[in-house]
Amino acid sequence: MAAAEFWYEFASTYSYPAAMRVGRLAAARGVVLAWRPFLLGPIFAAQGWRDSPFNIYPAKGRYMWRDLERICAAAGLRFRRPEPFPQNSLLAARVALALALAGEERAEFSRKVYAAEFGEGLSISDRERIAALVAELGLDAEAVLARAESEANKALLKAACARAAEIGIFGAPRLVTEDGELFWGDDRLEQGLDWAAGRRP
Amino acid sequence: MAAAEFWYEFASTYSYPAAMRVGRLAAARGVVLAWRPFLLGPIFAAQGWRDSPFNIYPAKGRYMWRDLERICAAAGLRFRRPEPFPQNSLLAARVALALALAGEERAEFSRKVYAAEFGEGLSISDRERIAALVAELGLDAEAVLARAESEANKALLKAACARAAEIGIFGAPRLVTEDGELFWGDDRLEQGLDWAAGRRP
Repeated sequence: MAAAEFWYEFASTYSYPAAMRVGRLAAARGVVLAWRPFLLGPIFAAQGWRDSPFNIYPAKGRYMWRDLERICAAAGLRFRRPEPFPQNSLLAARVALALALAGEERAEFSRKVYAAEFGEGLSISDRERIAALVAELGLDAEAVLARAESEANKALLKAACARAAEIGIFGAPRLVTEDGELFWGDDRLEQGLDWAAGRRP
Repeated sequence: MAAAEFWYEFASTYSYPAAMRVGRLAAARGVVLAWRPFLLGPIFAAQGWRDSPFNIYPAKGRYMWRDLERICAAAGLRFRRPEPFPQNSLLAARVALALALAGEERAEFSRKVYAAEFGEGLSISDRERIAALVAELGLDAEAVLARAESEANKALLKAACARAAEIGIFGAPRLVTEDGELFWGDDRLEQGLDWAAGRRP
């Protein structure tokens, strides 16, 4: 069975259109997808950035917002820039990691977070909002949040971030195939999933 | 008549596959392409970089080389990494700018430079090599190089770099449409040329 990992950061802009379509692209190729939430903050900090590169480099930021707007328009996705940007994504990442990969719980929650953040421009650091998104899945939100904030789950997220840095991830979204190929960006989803499915150029 | 500008830097890795295909993509859409050589060095320096970001950030560099290798393999392009990287692209940019846009002289020279640099791994700061590429076009190489190094042409290249910074270019390749939209990267050629041709999502 072909498989790939989808590494994503909730504060990452291009992870939004990617998260909204990666599931169906993978299914169409028979690729089983493991959703891997992580944080870019520690990776950025290690290379001396205390903010998003889209804020540090204003021309890059202006381009990205316009590019994202065009991508969303072409994909029929709502788009609204959240303020502040980047959003604090720690709670959302912990909750995503606490949800089961099986049964699409983690994927569904993640899409809901992105839709709220970049589709509606809402804050994702708000605990009530995150709890409401979990509840929409038919889960016990308080129980999930408690699990998300357990020491064991916090350690899992730290390990995921360390793993991301170790395999050379420096931006999101990223597809990682079983043979260790990395594909960066919403632009590379098709290529990465084709690779994972064994269709190589 | 639909038109677009193709802004490129000879030291830019992703400009290689883009330069090799942008002409036929534009022709297929009836878009007239203006080839705009410029230098990223001054733009990078203005944001504090004294080297290519692919050298400053090693994980980004490792990813880029592998990504470029895959892109070239898929496109049937030869690929060989030049040393040192980045190459000094000043002479090549001056010569490209001194060549006529009409009659494809500038485009053909530019493709030859990229093929030598990233297809064969050769130095493009070498004056003899640049002269030989000009001669392959059936032009008087010494006359072209003299024109390239005239004060008037140097000033034109400086103006092009200032213009690039002014319109928000911070990387290459870049398509710029007549209505001022920017499309960054080899990934965006089709989208940018569709936009230039009036096919918008």
